[in-house]
Amino acid sequence: MRTLVGDLLACHLGQATSGTLGKRLYDALQQSIQAGMVAPGTRLPASRDLAKELGVSRNTVMAAYEQLQSEGYLSTRAGSGTFVSAVLPESDLSAIAPPVAEGRSTDGITLSRRGEQLLNRAGASQRQWGAFMPGVPDVRHFPQKTWRKISRRLNLRLPVETLSYSQHGGYAPLQQALADYLRVARSVKCTPEQILITSGTHQSLDLLAKMLCNPGDRVWVEEPGYWGHRSVLEINGLETVPVTVDDEGLTLPAEEAHVSPPRLICVTPSHQYPTGAVMGLARRKALLDRAQAWGSLIVEDDYDSEFRFGENPVPALQGLAQAGNVIYLGTFSKTLYPGLRTSYMVLPDSLTARLKIAHSELYRGGYGLTQLTLAEFIREGHYAAHVRRMRQLYSQRREALVTAIRQQLGEAFIGQESHAGLHLILALPQEIDDVAFSAGLEQAGVWTRPLSVYYMGVAKRRGLILGYACVEAEAMAETFRPIARALLPLLQR
Amino acid sequence: MRTLVGDLLACHLGQATSGTLGKRLYDALQQSIQAGMVAPGTRLPASRDLAKELGVSRNTVMAAYEQLQSEGYLSTRAGSGTFVSAVLPESDLSAIAPPVAEGRSTDGITLSRRGEQLLNRAGASQRQWGAFMPGVPDVRHFPQKTWRKISRRLNLRLPVETLSYSQHGGYAPLQQALADYLRVARSVKCTPEQILITSGTHQSLDLLAKMLCNPGDRVWVEEPGYWGHRSVLEINGLETVPVTVDDEGLTLPAEEAHVSPPRLICVTPSHQYPTGAVMGLARRKALLDRAQAWGSLIVEDDYDSEFRFGENPVPALQGLAQAGNVIYLGTFSKTLYPGLRTSYMVLPDSLTARLKIAHSELYRGGYGLTQLTLAEFIREGHYAAHVRRMRQLYSQRREALVTAIRQQLGEAFIGQESHAGLHLILALPQEIDDVAFSAGLEQAGVWTRPLSVYYMGVAKRRGLILGYACVEAEAMAETFRPIARALLPLLQR
Repeated sequence: MRTLVGDLLACHLGQATSGTLGKRLYDALQQSIQAGMVAPGTRLPASRDLAKELGVSRNTVMAAYEQLQSEGYLSTRAGSGTFVSAVLPESDLSAIAPPVAEGRSTDGITLSRRGEQLLNRAGASQRQWGAFMPGVPDVRHFPQKTWRKISRRLNLRLPVETLSYSQHGGYAPLQQALADYLRVARSVKCTPEQILITSGTHQSLDLLAKMLCNPGDRVWVEEPGYWGHRSVLEINGLETVPVTVDDEGLTLPAEEAHVSPPRLICVTPSHQYPTGAVMGLARRKALLDRAQAWGSLIVEDDYDSEFRFGENPVPALQGLAQAGNVIYLGTFSKTLYPGLRTSYMVLPDSLTARLKIAHSELYRGGYGLTQLTLAEFIREGHYAAHVRRMRQLYSQRREALVTAIRQQLGEAFIGQESHAGLHLILALPQEIDDVAFSAGLEQAGVWTRPLSVYYMGVAKRRGLILGYACVEAEAMAETFRPIARALLPLLQR
Repeated sequence: MRTLVGDLLACHLGQATSGTLGKRLYDALQQSIQAGMVAPGTRLPASRDLAKELGVSRNTVMAAYEQLQSEGYLSTRAGSGTFVSAVLPESDLSAIAPPVAEGRSTDGITLSRRGEQLLNRAGASQRQWGAFMPGVPDVRHFPQKTWRKISRRLNLRLPVETLSYSQHGGYAPLQQALADYLRVARSVKCTPEQILITSGTHQSLDLLAKMLCNPGDRVWVEEPGYWGHRSVLEINGLETVPVTVDDEGLTLPAEEAHVSPPRLICVTPSHQYPTGAVMGLARRKALLDRAQAWGSLIVEDDYDSEFRFGENPVPALQGLAQAGNVIYLGTFSKTLYPGLRTSYMVLPDSLTARLKIAHSELYRGGYGLTQLTLAEFIREGHYAAHVRRMRQLYSQRREALVTAIRQQLGEAFIGQESHAGLHLILALPQEIDDVAFSAGLEQAGVWTRPLSVYYMGVAKRRGLILGYACVEAEAMAETFRPIARALLPLLQR
């Protein structure tokens, strides 16, 4: 962490050519904060350490810190150091995030109906880092040096074909390493042959939608649920059917109810997105039985289940299935980093060969060096070690956020009890417009996502989804405070 | 080249633990050849050089070479060195390339109709490297060291968000570097904002198909043409209309003909795939006029036009368009290497913002380090230098293949006159079944693609598409010989 800020500043200082050293340091730090490169809530290195790292006098660093503090960019707390303010004086952040509406111009070339529909419901945030963006891990802790070392070593002895297109759903060493890992860590039943490597869960689902479903086929999705599932399924011509989620995740209709069987059932049973619900064993068995009776396939998106704190891990639904009717989706986006764009599927035996050919045909394979480096990274134990380390860190951060909510607002605002993942829900009273509230916070430089946009129909619950992964535990109370401050007046009305 | 074989062998030697050094070297080399890691036609390092590189005696290397020669794995030619035989004694290559039919099992879970259709017409080859696979550049020459150096340097000072999801259609420095390059090298008219980075031309086309076309919309594709265009368009529910290609590429119907205007027209005007035809200025203008009159958008796939030998470059169609109705697709798959999976589109202004949002929504962005390394690689001039170097190499290889065809078969077998690209067509008499002929060669370890599979309808021409990019000029005649040998008896019938 310290090194990252230091490197960033050193780079800025090296580029600037005029002004005193003090002025250049001030500019570099101010610009880094404004551009969002150093996120709100970040603890800065102690002046002594930064001075040493940059090779400047401690007075120079202290002067820059003090000026930025007087301007509201930084804040200090006795005994805990200097932090980037949670709410910045100027919202230059808007430069990073143009309002989505800009992109919706209907001038010029007309989009397709499905294209218009996609944009009207677009869910991807314009920001993908910082407090409290959900869905993003703390990428600062990714062990870059270890990764680079493996990559360099492999690079010297890779067969030349590794640079060409790949076939067979990815490289065999990664399929092998993953199969070994998944059997132990997630109780997934699979051989390496059943694994298909993709460029993200969106691609995994796109392939399933195209290869398993005809236009107009029904697919069950969770309500509330992940916008990405819906976008990918609908653009492929499928009818998404929102199915209510309760404290145990996806609900099932009564046995005697008349149901038009869906082709696919998309679920996040280990940690429902976004509510955090965990599906219990009875519900899991009922879901498997129903799917089998209907001839439906279950798509299990196990996006962040590596991060389960304190309790026993919840094994994957796939491992429980007798009928080979579960397709398991996993990703490295949450355990390593999203920009790696590496995910995978565990396919039922009978689909493996056909879906691998289809994958080459539709997307063409590649990324040889990345996949082989990842295989080695897993095989040598770095992956498991990293997950363990991050699990502990996230557990502390989650605890710190729960404490902050409890102290600054009260118990009633904690929206879920599950101890897992990278986000939680701040529950809001039904009369508060969470979309407007979230937009207001965004103006003040605090990024959250309103719960109600995760509903296809009328939102039954209101709240904010808070990603706590990138906020250090010590900075949590301070980083959360602007949310509490903005909320309290609304509650007293 | 020498270093690659040397590295490969050094790695094998390091892993083997038993047997004499001579036996281990023999095994390493034989296995590398059998597994296809050292391609047929490859020239091996001189025994003296390899001995020095591996730190073994020259006698050891010579003994291994001699044994492999006596077994048919290697052949020598006076004055030009030792080569891997074009036709290997055992076709263990089949282990790398399971027959496609295996994947077509219809046991178990049923595919969708569109999925079945895709597999029935699947065009991707199971092999993506070696003589004479078309579509693959000589990846052995990619300047890995330069790339790694830039990547390492950048890695130290990248903002942490570079590891997260990206938005805005890719990273700005790459968009900037590309815009500068395309203006000069391809006469493309664009600002950096118009550039959207994708994970391959398949993804570019997938985005256009979804966002611009409704199911059932007509799209013109070239006949013969690239199978990938057709696969991506059809899986998205579009009706592909094959339009005949002549010596100038895509033909246009007579002015007075009644035409149902297509939504998109997909063309490869600079170097038609696979025939190699170049579209002249008059045809280009007519195409632009017609598209404008019809309200159709032109999708220009400029996949390998960097490699144009001897003549003036053919500028992009996009630069000629007045109406902003051309979408330009480019890729690094042919200029750098396919496994990089980096391509791009130049969009008309009015589409830019909307398609960038759609890209984040459907695929999610990432690959920060790759994109920023590439930007720097271009900006520092390494990209232009590499393209120049490869252009010269490919020009020699093309010349060598033309000479081999002329000498071993005759002028009539040269299927095109264009001096460009990474492949050419070996023209075959109409009565020869090119599919069966190509399959026979495959059994003997020579990889080609039959021209007739690039037709949607009845093939009007027969031939083999020969990728010459991976075969060194000196090895060309020898590598081509098995094809001539197999063909001659068929001609005499």
